[in-house]
Amino acid sequence: MTYCVGLRLDKGIVFMSDTRTNAGVDNISTVKKMFTWAVPGERMITLLMAGNLATTQAVVSLLDERSKVSEDRDPSILRQPTMFQVAKLVGDTLKEVIATAAPSGPQSDAPFTATIMLGGQIGGGNPTLYLIYPEGNFVEATEDTPFFQIGEMKYGRPILVRAFDPSASFEQAVRLLLVSYDSTIKANLGVDLPLDLQIYDTDSLKIGKEMRIERDDPYYVSVSRGWGVALKAALESLPPFKL
Amino acid sequence: MTYCVGLRLDKGIVFMSDTRTNAGVDNISTVKKMFTWAVPGERMITLLMAGNLATTQAVVSLLDERSKVSEDRDPSILRQPTMFQVAKLVGDTLKEVIATAAPSGPQSDAPFTATIMLGGQIGGGNPTLYLIYPEGNFVEATEDTPFFQIGEMKYGRPILVRAFDPSASFEQAVRLLLVSYDSTIKANLGVDLPLDLQIYDTDSLKIGKEMRIERDDPYYVSVSRGWGVALKAALESLPPFKL
Repeated sequence: MTYCVGLRLDKGIVFMSDTRTNAGVDNISTVKKMFTWAVPGERMITLLMAGNLATTQAVVSLLDERSKVSEDRDPSILRQPTMFQVAKLVGDTLKEVIATAAPSGPQSDAPFTATIMLGGQIGGGNPTLYLIYPEGNFVEATEDTPFFQIGEMKYGRPILVRAFDPSASFEQAVRLLLVSYDSTIKANLGVDLPLDLQIYDTDSLKIGKEMRIERDDPYYVSVSRGWGVALKAALESLPPFKL
Repeated sequence: MTYCVGLRLDKGIVFMSDTRTNAGVDNISTVKKMFTWAVPGERMITLLMAGNLATTQAVVSLLDERSKVSEDRDPSILRQPTMFQVAKLVGDTLKEVIATAAPSGPQSDAPFTATIMLGGQIGGGNPTLYLIYPEGNFVEATEDTPFFQIGEMKYGRPILVRAFDPSASFEQAVRLLLVSYDSTIKANLGVDLPLDLQIYDTDSLKIGKEMRIERDDPYYVSVSRGWGVALKAALESLPPFKL
């Protein structure tokens, strides 16, 4: 399993992904699920991947290979004029990879399926966040739905639904994400540290802060410990039930 | 979908179930998922049901019919000597109903599947809580795992994992459950009010408090509204992240 989140803030976009990959509980590994292509001053494109690892790795490899050929026989994400066109290209690549692996063609519940989150900004366009389905189509984050989650999203969703605020600072957004991840990691063996974090500042057209949060990261540990105490205090602050 | 929870406290057992049943989002109804058989002074047995409605209703009808025949050709839950034997009987009945509907026999992912939670106390035995699988077997709540959830359990699990305390009062347990339900209801159309609540007091051998919590219940509304504010305050109480 996997847990990736992208938050579209007024100030920019915050991406977070876990690194646990598993084929059964007895076969686990650490793998990066966040990939970035950037041309400073022109474009910044980040992908978060959930699903079959062979599929997601093949998608990244194809996108990367095609971005390096000089002629444009193969479409490159570095030459697409808009984020919409990048989303279309990533969706087509995903559909192509799934179709190659599954002779019966892509289906939502196919064993080689994957879901991709795409965020970034190109030139004078707006920063955008897309959720790309295994069928190759996609939806965009809007003011009503300003964040996406992919993978094991249920445990960490209530805190996002309740506390996400598009006007939040990057610092507040990271703290919120760590609480959402901590709730998920405590409940599901398929999601685990280390976590990859990337922050994109609107109109900067370059990779912002990038860091890996390890299991013994002092800030993560303080959030994880503090959250249990804070939650109990929050419960106690509610009016008492009377039998 | 469905969301049912049973909490084994030092003081007794608290049961809660929602009432939403649906076959697609365009076909919803309200249905009770909590059923009780009690002989005051001798036994108190409560079932919570999740899964295929035809299956769970058939199980309840069979258990109820068999508890009313005077001869004991059919086993009755009112004549079982222990909660373990009741769990075995309920499991066998569940397996029997699924087998009747699905010619290929019970399977975990069969379309006629259901999961049942069983709690209660008989005579001098301890109050116990069981989780009964569609295959007819079951597990018992222990000190390490003192509560069970069935149905749409993921959204409401983090708060239970963090804040459940077996030494809690019934009042505290109900407040905790309402927060867990509110988180679930806000995220999933398959779980909804009204909620059924039942409280069993250890060694009372009778139904304790029983009530239905409606959508406009003043206490539920105050918890639902207060929780958003309390969660934001809890987040703010955590140490700030520094970029």
